[in-house]
Amino acid sequence: MSGLLGTNVITQIGILVHDIDKTSRVYADFFGMDVPPAILTDAPEIARTEFEGAPSPARARLAFFDMGSLQMELIEPDEHPSTWRNDLNEHGEGVHHIAFQIAGMAEKISVLEGKGYALQQKGEYTGGRYAYMDTAPDLKVLVELLEND
Amino acid sequence: MSGLLGTNVITQIGILVHDIDKTSRVYADFFGMDVPPAILTDAPEIARTEFEGAPSPARARLAFFDMGSLQMELIEPDEHPSTWRNDLNEHGEGVHHIAFQIAGMAEKISVLEGKGYALQQKGEYTGGRYAYMDTAPDLKVLVELLEND
Repeated sequence: MSGLLGTNVITQIGILVHDIDKTSRVYADFFGMDVPPAILTDAPEIARTEFEGAPSPARARLAFFDMGSLQMELIEPDEHPSTWRNDLNEHGEGVHHIAFQIAGMAEKISVLEGKGYALQQKGEYTGGRYAYMDTAPDLKVLVELLEND
Repeated sequence: MSGLLGTNVITQIGILVHDIDKTSRVYADFFGMDVPPAILTDAPEIARTEFEGAPSPARARLAFFDMGSLQMELIEPDEHPSTWRNDLNEHGEGVHHIAFQIAGMAEKISVLEGKGYALQQKGEYTGGRYAYMDTAPDLKVLVELLEND
């Protein structure tokens, strides 16, 4: 494995939705699971979200379903600028990203930028951080890097 | 687990592409893997493909990458009517479906149809069969059923 991420294990599929409560109920019924709580991402002073290089107050409500070895993440963004809001406005509901658990966020972002993949959005959450890299032109899907402490 | 499929384990993510040779090389470089061969789906007399209730001679070239516990499937469809060609024309390159390994194809299709999920396309391959069910309005992604003998 000499890939750019140091891993090829997909840990999450992210899906943009307009109404997370409604779609969570549909998923729970379809797959015979409990409806998970929708979690609001951290406030801007904790998340320190940057979208296209500028700070953004954007937040989202998230719901997670365990689907075998990976999670389905439903994402209902607010109206502030973000990769989530932009994609939802441009492409409608559907798959937003696939995620990989990596080590060494700053270095991985740098490696990917060196290969021409721009950092689209990054932020912090309790216990870790994330970055969306604009791999869509090449891989036909957005890649999210996740690093937990 | 009393879900509709009898499983919630995602075994495959399918991605539509215009040029499977080019995108396979990109995936191989990105993830540090070998370029897999692109496999042409079976001829119509074997595949017995039905799209929206009518036989279709549609075929596709497929390439598979092992990504942890699931496969990424790249799909380059031909020009004949299919879920692949329609989605590629309408939405461009990107995620087409998530797949689940199920048992009892006819019964599962019937259960899903009973819940309002239409059969979009089905066909055979050596050793098994598949069906795409139109779950996108509800789940925001298309579900493929796979049954291997």
